[in-house]
Amino acid sequence: MAITLGANRYGKAEIRLVRVVRDSDTHELRDLNVSVALCGDLAGPHLSGDNSNVLPTDTQKNTVYAFAKEHGVGEIERFALLLARHFVASQPSIARARVSVEEYGWRRLGPHSFARAGAGTRTAVATVDGDRAWVVSGVADLVLMNTTDSQFVGFVTDRYTTLPEATDRILATTVNARWRHADAQAEHWDGSYAGARQALIDAFTGTYSRALQETLYAMGQRVLAERPELVEVRLSLPNRHHFMVDLAPFGLENPGEVFHADDRPYGLIEGVVQCDDAPPAGPAWEATWSF
Amino acid sequence: MAITLGANRYGKAEIRLVRVVRDSDTHELRDLNVSVALCGDLAGPHLSGDNSNVLPTDTQKNTVYAFAKEHGVGEIERFALLLARHFVASQPSIARARVSVEEYGWRRLGPHSFARAGAGTRTAVATVDGDRAWVVSGVADLVLMNTTDSQFVGFVTDRYTTLPEATDRILATTVNARWRHADAQAEHWDGSYAGARQALIDAFTGTYSRALQETLYAMGQRVLAERPELVEVRLSLPNRHHFMVDLAPFGLENPGEVFHADDRPYGLIEGVVQCDDAPPAGPAWEATWSF
Amino acid sequence: MAITLGANRYGKAEIRLVRVVRDSDTHELRDLNVSVALCGDLAGPHLSGDNSNVLPTDTQKNTVYAFAKEHGVGEIERFALLLARHFVASQPSIARARVSVEEYGWRRLGPHSFARAGAGTRTAVATVDGDRAWVVSGVADLVLMNTTDSQFVGFVTDRYTTLPEATDRILATTVNARWRHADAQAEHWDGSYAGARQALIDAFTGTYSRALQETLYAMGQRVLAERPELVEVRLSLPNRHHFMVDLAPFGLENPGEVFHADDRPYGLIEGVVQCDDAPPAGPAWEATWSF
Amino acid sequence: MAITLGANRYGKAEIRLVRVVRDSDTHELRDLNVSVALCGDLAGPHLSGDNSNVLPTDTQKNTVYAFAKEHGVGEIERFALLLARHFVASQPSIARARVSVEEYGWRRLGPHSFARAGAGTRTAVATVDGDRAWVVSGVADLVLMNTTDSQFVGFVTDRYTTLPEATDRILATTVNARWRHADAQAEHWDGSYAGARQALIDAFTGTYSRALQETLYAMGQRVLAERPELVEVRLSLPNRHHFMVDLAPFGLENPGEVFHADDRPYGLIEGVVQCDDAPPAGPAWEATWSF
Repeated sequence: MAITLGANRYGKAEIRLVRVVRDSDTHELRDLNVSVALCGDLAGPHLSGDNSNVLPTDTQKNTVYAFAKEHGVGEIERFALLLARHFVASQPSIARARVSVEEYGWRRLGPHSFARAGAGTRTAVATVDGDRAWVVSGVADLVLMNTTDSQFVGFVTDRYTTLPEATDRILATTVNARWRHADAQAEHWDGSYAGARQALIDAFTGTYSRALQETLYAMGQRVLAERPELVEVRLSLPNRHHFMVDLAPFGLENPGEVFHADDRPYGLIEGVVQCDDAPPAGPAWEATWSF
Repeated sequence: MAITLGANRYGKAEIRLVRVVRDSDTHELRDLNVSVALCGDLAGPHLSGDNSNVLPTDTQKNTVYAFAKEHGVGEIERFALLLARHFVASQPSIARARVSVEEYGWRRLGPHSFARAGAGTRTAVATVDGDRAWVVSGVADLVLMNTTDSQFVGFVTDRYTTLPEATDRILATTVNARWRHADAQAEHWDGSYAGARQALIDAFTGTYSRALQETLYAMGQRVLAERPELVEVRLSLPNRHHFMVDLAPFGLENPGEVFHADDRPYGLIEGVVQCDDAPPAGPAWEATWSF
Repeated sequence: MAITLGANRYGKAEIRLVRVVRDSDTHELRDLNVSVALCGDLAGPHLSGDNSNVLPTDTQKNTVYAFAKEHGVGEIERFALLLARHFVASQPSIARARVSVEEYGWRRLGPHSFARAGAGTRTAVATVDGDRAWVVSGVADLVLMNTTDSQFVGFVTDRYTTLPEATDRILATTVNARWRHADAQAEHWDGSYAGARQALIDAFTGTYSRALQETLYAMGQRVLAERPELVEVRLSLPNRHHFMVDLAPFGLENPGEVFHADDRPYGLIEGVVQCDDAPPAGPAWEATWSF
Repeated sequence: MAITLGANRYGKAEIRLVRVVRDSDTHELRDLNVSVALCGDLAGPHLSGDNSNVLPTDTQKNTVYAFAKEHGVGEIERFALLLARHFVASQPSIARARVSVEEYGWRRLGPHSFARAGAGTRTAVATVDGDRAWVVSGVADLVLMNTTDSQFVGFVTDRYTTLPEATDRILATTVNARWRHADAQAEHWDGSYAGARQALIDAFTGTYSRALQETLYAMGQRVLAERPELVEVRLSLPNRHHFMVDLAPFGLENPGEVFHADDRPYGLIEGVVQCDDAPPAGPAWEATWSF
């Protein structure tokens, strides 16, 4: 038996970059959280402390800031691809680079004034391996609720069952979704994101839900049906329980009006919806999803 | 020397209440976090474990839910007053009650569908002592940024100074503001809140800032000038530093375009702006502000 | 009616300072979070953007780091006093300074190796006004539990009561306590802290609790009885509810063995225990306590 | 092209269970956070809202509490295996179950009194598929620091390099480590955990580090060398930067004594160390690691 080094990667995480475009009196603003991870010929630092193949994480950080000036930020998928390709192309020891970006939205208040918006964070992950590239986009922390059109009946019962059937309940979730692009050649990343996000919302809103799984599938299905440039959607949907409060002890009825929003435990529904002719995912999902 | 019991209070904190109004096919939604604190003749439980004057915090929670059904939620100031008055009126041992409410905003997506909004939380605190009442409203976690029209020059220097003067910088803050109403008789709490919140935003956006203190005062001043029903504003404004990245080592200029958004440390500017003829604050600010 | 500036202060918050003493092969480590707040003749920046009385928060940060080198850190009360006195003495416009320190504990693993300990954070706040000084020490986030010797009976009941009496329950809390020193002349801050912290733990452990209020008072009383240098204790004790799970539907008894640890809502019990001959608190508690 | 359902799972997450053993006057305490995820024949709920194969997450929760009573908690690996085997054995539609447990440590203060300890959380994940089983144990949030014996030199430089070489620096990290057992038959899970945890600490403390990667490998190697029952270690080590403060502007030297502990960005070093004769991992790592 021998002990060996397996898969490994390293990089700078959570580089908080704010880029202002001030070409006119009306400024533009992009607010990003960028993380870099590199893989390659890195046995040296692990086995003998030899850093001759190691581009420091500090340099990665500098590169992110310098690229934001030289190339602008623009669409985050494009910015992530640009950075990932740079690290692979410029470092002989680096075979694969992954650049992850979270973008925080801001609402314009004036020519150079903004309020941070809160309804979900846009995400993108670009993975480059040699001359191949994969892009996964997504949305995180988008909280949605339907106050009716949700039920949960007909489930398995056993010795440990106490849950009654529910024919009308609140359905609330925090959408964490990612979707894979067929290729890395897209021309309209912003439009693709806006369309996929809206498809998720439309499916959540428009589905009569007999299980959160049914809503999950409807959301993934809608994204793929509407966005031909996408081939796979992965969704993680916590079931944020809203329990109807028992008001009978106080002589009151509660026909679906007063709820306790509980923190823990919560249901967690996760699933993949995909096109059957999707090209191979390669390393696209590494570190972005727990399956 | 003797050891004695001083000020004290108790209550149930962070009761997470969601109230749905389903009188028609178009549902209404209020999403609250309610905390109750009671003061009065409570030496018993402290000194001898005698609970005969103690209304359990569990009962306080039940009361919040029952009132949400019986009276509806409506404007949170009104709901807080109703609850606070109930506890004082119904419990001989309770002299003073404070009910604090945070309200999370939701954006309508459809007749019974909603997305949680993120731009700041509305707050209200009602304090009732006997037959007197005070109301403080506010907004928390409202993140604002100006990308120019801010400078910081002419400050004190000493042996420990390294900061250069800045003639054009980003000014960003998370607004945590509370404002006191002249009395508890208001008829239009929602309109008062909307007006005060907009006054804060307008003053932040419209002020050329030579110090965050100047912006703070302008924000408080604007609220009081526009809202005659308000008499005092308290603001806590962290200076969320955005440092210009030095790109000179890479042969690049950085004319206010690329910034590092730092987490800690941060400046913290706090201040009160008030009307000189404001009625006494009494216990209105207890536990809502650190001054 | 005129609008005026009221109380105000400013400073640098959350300066994360790690100080290593390496006088020998066995290193010492202090890990602090330092916040500074200054008050004085500061109408200028608020009313006219005049910063001629403003010592920048950046300079305050530099001062903290420089003092850590020049004077060492040592006991945090002493370090806080040193800094607060410096700001008042060196800045004619500053009448009052408050320096707050949180200290994170580390357990020694070797001569220069450490593991961060988790059982509560030590705190200190020094307030200096002219030539007077006040010191408040404390502990935060110390989580304690008794699995028996707690009951809750004999309480008020009303229309909204559903809670049954409990004759044997879990009592768990997160201790947030602060205590005021009679004066700022102490010679043994470390010993005072260790003694007060142990008194809190001993009282929590040793009290048969008929209400969390009874435990609170016992904790404050014990601190004052054992530590003559202290004159006032303020405690904020959330009642971290552990609900006995109803196992009857599964044909099982649950004699205090299986509990659900709930997050929200929670009870919140707050109170002051004091010596009746305590000197005036002055500004000692400003911004450290919500009463 | 057709749209299809891919991998999926569901379950109850973060069931907060406290188990007291009160067989004698000296109580025992286990404080757990349990999450369940089930996979199997679950197309029904996704595609047609048919829940006839769905064991509700509420029932899963009940099962966790009931098992804690019927079987006790004991070693968390054993408890997780017991639950995972139950779900697979009792539900024909469930092919695979994963039960994840976090255990929070408490320090004994008395026969029935405890203080929560903070130095890392113990974790275990049991995965059962048919009659096969895998166990992964681990530790999370264990914060370690060496104040010397760390350097970083000899790295790649490029156009974006500004980092100077460091011959003596602080090395600090938050250990998040998981290790796979050769099989699920262990008799001494507690001893295995204690040994692996100590091996991590010993390797961190005892390694002269020329790169955090070298420390990572030493940690994994030590675990496998000392624990024959383990075959693979996965480590995620953020490099918690401590930057030496430049005190030269104040006429002070700083020979490794005064540091700024920074929050973001941070380095992130991740890697696998394994035995070359390890049995296949199967689904052991699903959802526990981002590779």
